[in-house]
Amino acid sequence: MDAAVKTPQANVASVMADLGSRARSAARILAKAEAKAKNEALAAMAQAIRSAAGAILAANEKDIAAAKGRDRPASFVDRLTLDPDRIEAMAGGLEDIAALDDPVGDVIAAWDRPNGLHIERVRTPLGVIGIIYESRPNVTADAGGLCLKSGNAVILRGGSESQHSAQAIHACLAEGLKKAGLPQDAIQLVPTTDRAAVGEMLKGLNGSIDVIVPRGGRSLVARVQEEARVPVFAHLEGICHIYVHAAADLEMARDITVNAKMRRPGICGAAETLLVDRACADAGLEPLVGALIDAGCEVRGDARTQSVNERVVPATPGDWSTEYLEPVISVKVVDGLEQAMDHIARYGSQHTDAIVTGDEAAADAFLNGVDSAIVLHNASTQFADGGEFGMGAEIGIATGKMHARGPVGVEQLTSFKYVVRGAGQTRPG
Amino acid sequence: MDAAVKTPQANVASVMADLGSRARSAARILAKAEAKAKNEALAAMAQAIRSAAGAILAANEKDIAAAKGRDRPASFVDRLTLDPDRIEAMAGGLEDIAALDDPVGDVIAAWDRPNGLHIERVRTPLGVIGIIYESRPNVTADAGGLCLKSGNAVILRGGSESQHSAQAIHACLAEGLKKAGLPQDAIQLVPTTDRAAVGEMLKGLNGSIDVIVPRGGRSLVARVQEEARVPVFAHLEGICHIYVHAAADLEMARDITVNAKMRRPGICGAAETLLVDRACADAGLEPLVGALIDAGCEVRGDARTQSVNERVVPATPGDWSTEYLEPVISVKVVDGLEQAMDHIARYGSQHTDAIVTGDEAAADAFLNGVDSAIVLHNASTQFADGGEFGMGAEIGIATGKMHARGPVGVEQLTSFKYVVRGAGQTRPG
Repeated sequence: MDAAVKTPQANVASVMADLGSRARSAARILAKAEAKAKNEALAAMAQAIRSAAGAILAANEKDIAAAKGRDRPASFVDRLTLDPDRIEAMAGGLEDIAALDDPVGDVIAAWDRPNGLHIERVRTPLGVIGIIYESRPNVTADAGGLCLKSGNAVILRGGSESQHSAQAIHACLAEGLKKAGLPQDAIQLVPTTDRAAVGEMLKGLNGSIDVIVPRGGRSLVARVQEEARVPVFAHLEGICHIYVHAAADLEMARDITVNAKMRRPGICGAAETLLVDRACADAGLEPLVGALIDAGCEVRGDARTQSVNERVVPATPGDWSTEYLEPVISVKVVDGLEQAMDHIARYGSQHTDAIVTGDEAAADAFLNGVDSAIVLHNASTQFADGGEFGMGAEIGIATGKMHARGPVGVEQLTSFKYVVRGAGQTRPG
Repeated sequence: MDAAVKTPQANVASVMADLGSRARSAARILAKAEAKAKNEALAAMAQAIRSAAGAILAANEKDIAAAKGRDRPASFVDRLTLDPDRIEAMAGGLEDIAALDDPVGDVIAAWDRPNGLHIERVRTPLGVIGIIYESRPNVTADAGGLCLKSGNAVILRGGSESQHSAQAIHACLAEGLKKAGLPQDAIQLVPTTDRAAVGEMLKGLNGSIDVIVPRGGRSLVARVQEEARVPVFAHLEGICHIYVHAAADLEMARDITVNAKMRRPGICGAAETLLVDRACADAGLEPLVGALIDAGCEVRGDARTQSVNERVVPATPGDWSTEYLEPVISVKVVDGLEQAMDHIARYGSQHTDAIVTGDEAAADAFLNGVDSAIVLHNASTQFADGGEFGMGAEIGIATGKMHARGPVGVEQLTSFKYVVRGAGQTRPG
């Protein structure tokens, strides 16, 4: 089927239901698959991607030409574009995933009961994961590999404008599965670009999808969170804060703030708001603001912040709840730790927030009191990343409190069961 | 307000929204509460319940009289009825919860990164829990206590016909909170018996409810699972299996089967279907069936099972997916382990399933292959219970794979955060 040909709307539901039931069947086989077979498949996928580089680039050319024909912005085309380096990165990423410890079967806890029962809590796959992503073809390989490693079947629904690229990459994943003797249905790519397919996935395909992971911008994530009838691992936004406490080392505060905002302003762990304690504002505010401006950052500040540098733009109320994802930061002077934590509770997104201070008690109060997935003391918010945490590749960061919170890697794509071994015990009374 | 007076429909949404925002504020305070304060509150609640026994019984009398006036069945009235023993059980239950380890602040894992960052995964409360239960007044105390211990605020919505009883018990919980200096809004009882309040809770009260726990029968759980827009910890049903494998000790199989079905036929961990391996059916089937019938159980069997005892009733296809919760069991002869696991995958409810066998390899295949929250080898399914697992009091058993699976106790009512401690680290590159 040509990627551009849409399946008639009436058929989408049945096509998707079929994908769901095949994924469910594959998941049962995959749950019992040996680590060795999964790793062989991942290695074979990497090789297949390298061998098919030419075909993948040719498919990608078609997608790029179509996107340019639709006058898509340069940033869109950039995310869509593959080149030999990006193809090698996909292959290498699959090999990295193969090298991770297999989470399935891990005994998380074990204990004995007085009646002799031996209880283990054992890690199991979740089942079937649905990935809904924008036109970034590399997600096809990354997400497919992470789901396979964690023993889950996956249904991939990429952006319609990357469908040729995704199909070429998916063919390599299928080849790897085949070589390792694993079911082809373990990694399925939605064959239609009809948007109704997304709606079907969000309804869960008759109970065939256990969790949905959206990969993309705010509007995609918002739609998924609003409409999904199955659990979602996601973060809507990362409004991350740096709070420079009264007892901060001001040079450290400057280095951390500039890094947290400017290393990569477009990632979810980038700082969006700097809170400076009034107690250190006389000495600290001007150098902090100056360093940000010198680094090329637009500063939007409250009245006090505006007073230290004429290049500070007045902040509007909306700035405190804006995720810029650009070299822009909002800056506010606060009356101590409690006011900083109140600000974060009100405007933050429970993603990642940091305090800079030399006062351990203040640090502990902040680390305990701020209700975010990741809280840091004297370190940059840009560390909010599964790789930086030593957890290996991740499929994203979750800000919900259920199941997976923070980086979502292979362990977070698992559930568990209780395994109880006895010698004929019956329950009295 | 008299419990029987309903709030006008138009007001329900605003009453509930107010409850939600007060719960959210209380949750922020509760998350930082010391274990000592929470335990003092639990102890004071227990004392208040004992002191108020007369008032609670008087309130309960009103509910009972009203239920009888509506010709409610005896089982309904029994669940509604309190007596001095049941009141003491509530008080003692709160003291048991006080004696549990406090899960909040537990460091679940800790590690160091090459760059010197120290990362901890620390247990935190979930936030606000909504409990929707039927007319069993004791749930007011049990659920309130478990949520408090785990640092969560709770909104309790009991069955409308137990409202007088629930209000009398809730007054004791409020007294305990007050004595310990904890916010009254930590445990709120929905003041209206209007059913629209349940709908508001299922919508999440503008993001104020983090998780809903239904406590009650199948129709309540089904409604909650169908309509909830927030996560739900629940099991719809417990269609639990005993599989007697070819290599089973037949006396053990008999004892386990009779216990699994007949100890308490009405609990969710009671066995509903017995699968007997054809390889041991000649020797094993008749004694198993005979023992069940002798114990007062109705046996609904396939043709083979009918052939061993004339009192066996023919099973219909619907029997394999029926949770009887009564002294009734369905019995089927299967062709080995794979067919047993296929049957469980098709008809089971992913709650609790057991194999009886002396063959360790068969046991391992079953324990790995059956996708249920609890799988047992040579032990009764009636052990499916947080107390029996050594996990303390539970709020129920969850069959979903997300977050909490199996018994839901105080640990399962928590989330976690990553706490990262550094010395000024910034992220390169």
